[in-house]
Amino acid sequence: MPPFDVPEGDPFGPHNLPYGVFSLPGSDRRSVGVRLGDHVLDAGAAAVELGSPYAALLARPSLNPLLAAGRTAWSDVRRALTAWVTVPAHREAVAPLLHPLSEVTLHLPFEVADYVDFYASENHARNVGRIFRPDAEDSLTPNWKHLPIGYHGRSGTVVVSGTDVVRPSGQRKAPADPAPVFGPSVRLDIEAEVGFVVGAPSTMGTPVPLGGFRDHVFGLCLLNDWSARDLQAWEYVPLGPFLGKSFATSVSAWITPLDALDDALVAPPGRTHPLLPYLDDASEEPGGYDLRISVAVNGHVISEPPFSTMYWTAAQQLAHMTVNGASLRTGDLYGSGTVSGASENQRGSLLELTWNGRDTLELPDGKRTFLEDGDVVTLTAWAPGPDGTRVGLGEVTGRVVAGA
Amino acid sequence: MPPFDVPEGDPFGPHNLPYGVFSLPGSDRRSVGVRLGDHVLDAGAAAVELGSPYAALLARPSLNPLLAAGRTAWSDVRRALTAWVTVPAHREAVAPLLHPLSEVTLHLPFEVADYVDFYASENHARNVGRIFRPDAEDSLTPNWKHLPIGYHGRSGTVVVSGTDVVRPSGQRKAPADPAPVFGPSVRLDIEAEVGFVVGAPSTMGTPVPLGGFRDHVFGLCLLNDWSARDLQAWEYVPLGPFLGKSFATSVSAWITPLDALDDALVAPPGRTHPLLPYLDDASEEPGGYDLRISVAVNGHVISEPPFSTMYWTAAQQLAHMTVNGASLRTGDLYGSGTVSGASENQRGSLLELTWNGRDTLELPDGKRTFLEDGDVVTLTAWAPGPDGTRVGLGEVTGRVVAGA
Repeated sequence: MPPFDVPEGDPFGPHNLPYGVFSLPGSDRRSVGVRLGDHVLDAGAAAVELGSPYAALLARPSLNPLLAAGRTAWSDVRRALTAWVTVPAHREAVAPLLHPLSEVTLHLPFEVADYVDFYASENHARNVGRIFRPDAEDSLTPNWKHLPIGYHGRSGTVVVSGTDVVRPSGQRKAPADPAPVFGPSVRLDIEAEVGFVVGAPSTMGTPVPLGGFRDHVFGLCLLNDWSARDLQAWEYVPLGPFLGKSFATSVSAWITPLDALDDALVAPPGRTHPLLPYLDDASEEPGGYDLRISVAVNGHVISEPPFSTMYWTAAQQLAHMTVNGASLRTGDLYGSGTVSGASENQRGSLLELTWNGRDTLELPDGKRTFLEDGDVVTLTAWAPGPDGTRVGLGEVTGRVVAGA
Repeated sequence: MPPFDVPEGDPFGPHNLPYGVFSLPGSDRRSVGVRLGDHVLDAGAAAVELGSPYAALLARPSLNPLLAAGRTAWSDVRRALTAWVTVPAHREAVAPLLHPLSEVTLHLPFEVADYVDFYASENHARNVGRIFRPDAEDSLTPNWKHLPIGYHGRSGTVVVSGTDVVRPSGQRKAPADPAPVFGPSVRLDIEAEVGFVVGAPSTMGTPVPLGGFRDHVFGLCLLNDWSARDLQAWEYVPLGPFLGKSFATSVSAWITPLDALDDALVAPPGRTHPLLPYLDDASEEPGGYDLRISVAVNGHVISEPPFSTMYWTAAQQLAHMTVNGASLRTGDLYGSGTVSGASENQRGSLLELTWNGRDTLELPDGKRTFLEDGDVVTLTAWAPGPDGTRVGLGEVTGRVVAGA
């Protein structure tokens, strides 16, 4: 029986317990599942079987009811789940409800309300500045150190890991071209990011302070913000990215609760500029997360971006996003922005890794500047857990396919 | 009995029949309503009472089921409704289901999926260019005549007409300031727009061509894209507007079906640049709408922007928004962008009307550059209907209130 036999050191042991939504072969019924090793516990069925009061939150086709239930419920449910998969008395009831990961279908685990994407890595922002504004005095825009820059993206095209991504077509115009041309993107890129999932909503007109982060944010996932650099370059002045981003955003099937990541909390990088009070986290608990991300193309690792280097924390992003009174809804998702470390092999986009196509990346199956049809991009990550364990963040993967 | 006694020439006669969602005093029950003169027909109750097959679409707390039903259903339902309010045999059944507008509460009529805002008025874009880039060779950015510029906004803060708008706080920085300051926006503005409501969804990876507009878009509403110009100016480089817009977007309570606006179709302005095939509407039906908008502050009309002057049509915007394969969902909303005519008294924002605060606007209750607390902004509009009638587009109104 697998449940209590998760190998020592497995990054998906009982210290992790990320949430997803799955269905069994030949069935349309979706249920909340919890990952344990290489199995998925049907958490909804377990709650019913064990007569748990949380059946109403878990025996559901999406995580939204659990997300909406709030922080106390999140802790209570996690405590119950931990008991179900560790206390021997539950073994008989729980074991038949564990399904091998390889046999289930994983679905988008929650209904995305608003999707926002930030730009919070100083290394990434400086690289982008150097590439596109090589003559600028400062590689950062003047606002960068004062606020976490963000913009809204398309929530309707957020897809779960494993979904193919159709190469987008659109307009592009090189500086020398007399007019834009239309066609499939020739600079299709990725952005390695972490996504934060809002559970508890907030009231319109009332900002959420830095200290409210854990009351509103349920957990995090891996996120690939696919980007068509050529479309983006032509369209984005003055109102920002649109079609260069809106064709697809992929998220991991597993949402790791923040409660599983307390051992990964770290201080963010030192602040070089004074912050306005609503963003000043000097007296707050550490707001960074030590997540070790790995980016692979066709199974070959091309970069290992460290999330601990992010200048702006998720709590600061939440405080900023709501300081104007904008409300949160259950299912809001916000991306960290591309995670890039200081080293060349820690950059979270091909734009940076190839310096906008100037350099090539050597893969076992050939050279790359940007993505080719058929390429499979996979982000994985882990974080330090209790007692020297690792907390696995699963993966987000997607294959590029040509348009019709 | 009011129903068949709508005065001749009433802009909400049986030739119009816009859809909304209402509830009666003391009741939480919401139902689809149809406006007739100064009354609301409980369309859901009427469908049930008359044994209509459309009860499943109308006896609902939101327009979403009707929106999702598609173009044939939209026409069929409209035909049925027209009969219910015009055929004498229905009078006895229908009359008790008409409620005075003054007695009902109107709600946000549909669940907003993604919200996109465009920038489609050449007059508006040129005014903005002249204000913010006075030294530029061309007041338009190089891409403006080649594609309808747009960006995603926050769907969670789209509110129905009548909702108070809390003045947002945030960062602003005048060029001479050494660092940003925090406080309530001092340049709170409006943008007079028209919103288009998507009914039938589309498939990810498959663009919607120009000719698909009427298959996917159900109708239109009035939209006020409240804008904090000072917040926006500091934050928007390089990723576009964020907190300067996300605090609130107001829409009218009534959605006018496109089927009611066939007499308002007009050719858009002549195109000065060749268009790529997916945007070239030269051989399409006219894609412009002759909507006459009026903007009032505290009941005093300050501008009358003509929607017929918009360079990019709603069909072009839809084709552009999906050309990269982005899918549509039922409830997607997209705004036209500020509507500004060629004359000074046709400008759709205070930014333009006061030339970014350089000039003042004389109102009966005092001078204005931007909005003051307590100001009530109201957009109304009408369009030519059949046989010399007018089709009323209702109104979108909102009062500015100070933050806590």
